[in-house]
Amino acid sequence: MERTGVWIVGARGDVAVTAMVGARAIARGLAAPVALVTELPELKALELPAIDDLVFAGCDVRTDSLVDRAWQLHREHHLLEAATIQHVAGDLAEIDGSIAGAEAGAITAGNLAMRPLRAIVEEVRAALRAFRERSGVSRVVVVNLASTEPPLADHDAHDSLDAFDLALEADVREAVSASVLYAYAALDVGCAYVNFTPSRGARLAALHELALARRVPYCGNDGKTGETLVKTALAPMFRCRNLHVLSWVGYNMLGNSDGRVLADPTARASKVESKGKVLREALGYEPHATVGIEYVPSVGDWKLAWDFIHFEGFLGTRMSLQFTWQGCDSALAAPLVLDLIRLGDLAMRRGEIGYLGHTACFFKDPIGVAEQNLAVQFQRLVDYASNA
Amino acid sequence: MERTGVWIVGARGDVAVTAMVGARAIARGLAAPVALVTELPELKALELPAIDDLVFAGCDVRTDSLVDRAWQLHREHHLLEAATIQHVAGDLAEIDGSIAGAEAGAITAGNLAMRPLRAIVEEVRAALRAFRERSGVSRVVVVNLASTEPPLADHDAHDSLDAFDLALEADVREAVSASVLYAYAALDVGCAYVNFTPSRGARLAALHELALARRVPYCGNDGKTGETLVKTALAPMFRCRNLHVLSWVGYNMLGNSDGRVLADPTARASKVESKGKVLREALGYEPHATVGIEYVPSVGDWKLAWDFIHFEGFLGTRMSLQFTWQGCDSALAAPLVLDLIRLGDLAMRRGEIGYLGHTACFFKDPIGVAEQNLAVQFQRLVDYASNA
Amino acid sequence: MERTGVWIVGARGDVAVTAMVGARAIARGLAAPVALVTELPELKALELPAIDDLVFAGCDVRTDSLVDRAWQLHREHHLLEAATIQHVAGDLAEIDGSIAGAEAGAITAGNLAMRPLRAIVEEVRAALRAFRERSGVSRVVVVNLASTEPPLADHDAHDSLDAFDLALEADVREAVSASVLYAYAALDVGCAYVNFTPSRGARLAALHELALARRVPYCGNDGKTGETLVKTALAPMFRCRNLHVLSWVGYNMLGNSDGRVLADPTARASKVESKGKVLREALGYEPHATVGIEYVPSVGDWKLAWDFIHFEGFLGTRMSLQFTWQGCDSALAAPLVLDLIRLGDLAMRRGEIGYLGHTACFFKDPIGVAEQNLAVQFQRLVDYASNA
Amino acid sequence: MERTGVWIVGARGDVAVTAMVGARAIARGLAAPVALVTELPELKALELPAIDDLVFAGCDVRTDSLVDRAWQLHREHHLLEAATIQHVAGDLAEIDGSIAGAEAGAITAGNLAMRPLRAIVEEVRAALRAFRERSGVSRVVVVNLASTEPPLADHDAHDSLDAFDLALEADVREAVSASVLYAYAALDVGCAYVNFTPSRGARLAALHELALARRVPYCGNDGKTGETLVKTALAPMFRCRNLHVLSWVGYNMLGNSDGRVLADPTARASKVESKGKVLREALGYEPHATVGIEYVPSVGDWKLAWDFIHFEGFLGTRMSLQFTWQGCDSALAAPLVLDLIRLGDLAMRRGEIGYLGHTACFFKDPIGVAEQNLAVQFQRLVDYASNA
Repeated sequence: MERTGVWIVGARGDVAVTAMVGARAIARGLAAPVALVTELPELKALELPAIDDLVFAGCDVRTDSLVDRAWQLHREHHLLEAATIQHVAGDLAEIDGSIAGAEAGAITAGNLAMRPLRAIVEEVRAALRAFRERSGVSRVVVVNLASTEPPLADHDAHDSLDAFDLALEADVREAVSASVLYAYAALDVGCAYVNFTPSRGARLAALHELALARRVPYCGNDGKTGETLVKTALAPMFRCRNLHVLSWVGYNMLGNSDGRVLADPTARASKVESKGKVLREALGYEPHATVGIEYVPSVGDWKLAWDFIHFEGFLGTRMSLQFTWQGCDSALAAPLVLDLIRLGDLAMRRGEIGYLGHTACFFKDPIGVAEQNLAVQFQRLVDYASNA
Repeated sequence: MERTGVWIVGARGDVAVTAMVGARAIARGLAAPVALVTELPELKALELPAIDDLVFAGCDVRTDSLVDRAWQLHREHHLLEAATIQHVAGDLAEIDGSIAGAEAGAITAGNLAMRPLRAIVEEVRAALRAFRERSGVSRVVVVNLASTEPPLADHDAHDSLDAFDLALEADVREAVSASVLYAYAALDVGCAYVNFTPSRGARLAALHELALARRVPYCGNDGKTGETLVKTALAPMFRCRNLHVLSWVGYNMLGNSDGRVLADPTARASKVESKGKVLREALGYEPHATVGIEYVPSVGDWKLAWDFIHFEGFLGTRMSLQFTWQGCDSALAAPLVLDLIRLGDLAMRRGEIGYLGHTACFFKDPIGVAEQNLAVQFQRLVDYASNA
Repeated sequence: MERTGVWIVGARGDVAVTAMVGARAIARGLAAPVALVTELPELKALELPAIDDLVFAGCDVRTDSLVDRAWQLHREHHLLEAATIQHVAGDLAEIDGSIAGAEAGAITAGNLAMRPLRAIVEEVRAALRAFRERSGVSRVVVVNLASTEPPLADHDAHDSLDAFDLALEADVREAVSASVLYAYAALDVGCAYVNFTPSRGARLAALHELALARRVPYCGNDGKTGETLVKTALAPMFRCRNLHVLSWVGYNMLGNSDGRVLADPTARASKVESKGKVLREALGYEPHATVGIEYVPSVGDWKLAWDFIHFEGFLGTRMSLQFTWQGCDSALAAPLVLDLIRLGDLAMRRGEIGYLGHTACFFKDPIGVAEQNLAVQFQRLVDYASNA
Repeated sequence: MERTGVWIVGARGDVAVTAMVGARAIARGLAAPVALVTELPELKALELPAIDDLVFAGCDVRTDSLVDRAWQLHREHHLLEAATIQHVAGDLAEIDGSIAGAEAGAITAGNLAMRPLRAIVEEVRAALRAFRERSGVSRVVVVNLASTEPPLADHDAHDSLDAFDLALEADVREAVSASVLYAYAALDVGCAYVNFTPSRGARLAALHELALARRVPYCGNDGKTGETLVKTALAPMFRCRNLHVLSWVGYNMLGNSDGRVLADPTARASKVESKGKVLREALGYEPHATVGIEYVPSVGDWKLAWDFIHFEGFLGTRMSLQFTWQGCDSALAAPLVLDLIRLGDLAMRRGEIGYLGHTACFFKDPIGVAEQNLAVQFQRLVDYASNA
């Protein structure tokens, strides 16, 4: 029986823990696979790995155990139920042993600033190879769930694999970020790579070249879990009624560690940019649009978004729609992560290489796909399943 | 040069007046065709009649002039601008003369209860024929914009044209309503028929048979202008994320004459039924759903809807989305009416008969189409245009 | 050391259980007395009983243990924390033994329809006396937390104690309801009576007479915990700016047993009536106002209210305010119940008799007080404390 | 018959124009005095000047006529009705002649940077004296309705009138701003001074000394017209229920010239500071609070605010209230301006000097009054009237 390896960057974070607890709970029949897109009847034709066949591993600079992190989510965010955690505690303890720390694969800010880049990459490669061999999985999907990085400026070294390799050799640190190095290492050793964050990850011509060379697939960026999800459902509505959106003002509040990171303007820049393209693409023009992000500790993992959409209709009549989204970020992200792992595994099995355009509906800023209409993106996934 | 006749039932109502003022303002270059779906680039391939070539007529039991009604909309709802009304006042005055009153085609409650049904139908037929001849138009599209009727219960007479004709002969009044008689008369004399209201209109097997026999097209029911529009954009979002909608509670407020009519529970029943099917179709299951409609005079023609959607995600996590829609009903409906007139005319020209499935995106309860996903409905319209 | 007896009608309901768990948690130092009005510095001068000195008892037709009920609140509404329940489980078990069932004081619908009214009253009196003696408390406060009854129509028997006594004797069942009989029994044996529900309770001239005769205090009706609380804070704002409220449309959703009861139109009538007076009093005129109540099971004990307020300002300008309240009903009600118990006990100790006007800020429809401005009501309570 | 002079700084701005049009419309019986606090029955005892007896004048660097500005409000914000403007056009034209421009009293940025401060003050004094004499009014109230200035840092020169006079003499420009100079000039020539903006105005010890010396009253700062008004009504509600506010996140959108000015971070600083104190005072502690201000051109003069209040109740239960305020800024501000003019005039007539504490309910940041509970502030005004 084949099993699929999952190697998560940021394996002790909220989303990762929720995904692992959920996967084990589903595997053990404790929970229904609600919120997994890959469980929809439209996708039944796909021969996806069973949730039970996912073998989790990864890296993280944090060291608290997965079980402790799970209880923290329970206490602080009412997210995971006590009974569920108790039932999967043994599974989590087992995974704990497969999560590399700072000394063995997890890239730290310190390393990134000081160590030779080649050595950093080599450590990640070694960790991935070791996991594959030790666990006996057929294929490994690497998933980036680490905190959002500041935007990485374009650099000549990004333009080709040769240029990038030279930059690694010469330790041109401004050409890389942790997510880029993880992506490089993952693709290089033949793993599929999924970037669920707005960080750069595999989005460079150099890494696309590498994916083609190693014949592996990748996808990203930035999981679409809340306000942007609603945007890509609503903006096409205005479009298909020829209603002219004048202003789309969005305001996000979040209180988890993600929120703390985004309170820093440079990290926020990645996020806002990733959110910004959506309206332009979905509407065909650019309304007055703002995206505020505010760190509000008391809301914890609950992400609140309030959006006000001001639009003009027949004979210049001005009207509005406003919505308030109250979602639990980890509960929204985790099932999509499992979906992408399954789709990444299937793509490897099928020999699909380069970016996976049919995964666009999962991302705020899908690599290789301009389309931002959620329904059209989803139809593309359904078509992929139908043609399977 | 060909011209298209438009015969509106309820020609002095808010939507009708807004549509006529808008059409004339666009024809005269005073307003941009914002909010007309038929002006979208996706539909450019269709050879639709120019707005300037629409010749308006109709019937109404009310007698105030169109210009007076337009000023009323201006004063009470800030809807039409003074300059616009002044510029099209002459056009409106001309149309006034083509609107039949109670004595010559407009069906009254009194007539419906007392006069022979055949005679009523004959009067409408005569009015339609007279308009067609007098105005020299090539084709006539009949549009129902009258107030919502109470639901018309199913009746054996609806099952075939023969049975229906017998019921007319025998004055079986419980088998008909005003909208049904207008639809009958329209189809019978070879007009296209558009039902923009939730009333029964042409939705009977008998009238479908008549449409096929007279080789004319029809469509309906109930223009999708507000809360339901948003529903058919948002419900598929929950569906395509496999998020389980627990409750969808909607609450509508309206203060126009439509609201006054819907304050009556029997009229409201038609509306609520028309709105109810949407979630069932779009989600694939039936959440706890309620649709409240409240008459709030102070909001006038502004239709407010507040919807609360409670849904369950991964591991049973409960989350919510709520929205407030503040739209001007007439401004939302009028351009769609013009769209349907153009599409109805084109269908006649092309010899399309029976219900027009490609118009589903315009209706809350599209005849002959189960699909309730707005994006899919719209794609069907785009495909129709592409295959033109 | 003096202790205060608390005898709760509906002692196994959500609010009662939350109040008892909370009281014991506070008494044991496990929880801060957040949300207790009587803990505000403004009221420190009052010599209120300590929370630790409240001795709980009551009656209920339900028989599940208090601990089971507490776990149910934990599971279904995320309301009480596991650790808290575990710590007070022993206390709850002890109280269990003091809650009379259907056979010994709890009035059932069956009894109310069949048994002599005098006998019913006598049973309640006996239960109260037995509790007082057995527990050795100095005073007893009876609190009505039972489900809302249908409105009790005015009856001649309500007008004087003599008439009421005759009606009891003659079993004039249409003159009474369970809440009225409990109130009668409570006052008659010298207990203070608090009606936290919209049911009739002590609001009859006959029972006022009885309270004066027995020299005991009472207060009610209908605890102000959610939408109405906000209303009495916001309506005075419009008033003091001379802004004219045109419409105030409120829409409530609740999914607990209270909601199930209120889904019944006759029970709802009591609630809506109790909520309706508020605006009239607070604004000085009656805007177009509606109060919708919808039973939405998925929201459980969380009470959602959406209110839309349409108002007119300078030169007829129309503006709006809308709010969404998301409150946990039991968590809002329980501390107020403890407040009223303490204030009721103090009133008895001080020899205050008849209705307690200074408790108006706790009620939607305060007995004996027309004032509906929350700030003014609260000031009255502060003044009471200052003059203590 | 006595008449009251009104000299408005920023006399051609939206609020000023709305106030003048409204005053004349009320005077001519064209409009009801809705939204004037001074028309409430509670204040009837006050012998306020009739609206008809207000004589308007002022200064502005802008030069478009008042009638043109009124039509602009009509066109762009649907604020003033056409008929109203037509009826008061003559009155407005008359006032136009009494509005000083840049050359004769209106302080420009250029003057402020270059001309001797004494000369600037002297010009304003001269303009005020000229108006008083020319118009024959008994008293003059100066009202600041100019755009918000950046915050003026504290300076030693503010501490006493002597120090301030020396600073004027020595042209210590960092000690003054336009609003301070206007306030100085106004008080110095014996006018009452009302600061409706968040700018510094008369809020300096030096100017308080001047007001006492010249025996004139003043009040301010920052008219309370929208989000903050609601805050001071709602925050006391949480306080009087002992509910602990964790976070109060406010988000304001405005599209008028005020919004354009506030898009500049330094100007915004004044506003945010003025709004910030409110919660601290009303709650007695400082929750996590943010106030966002966004310039959204399409909303024009309509000020939208969305506030999310996260609070903790009994046993740590977290609940929320959110509201959306949609108000027309000028329509909310203008009647308060008229109220303050009347109260300022009355205070002069009565010989009240220094700050007018009874006007606190009109301001976000009332001078000399810490109280932020709207109801208590209003009661203070009512008491003032009762003791009149």
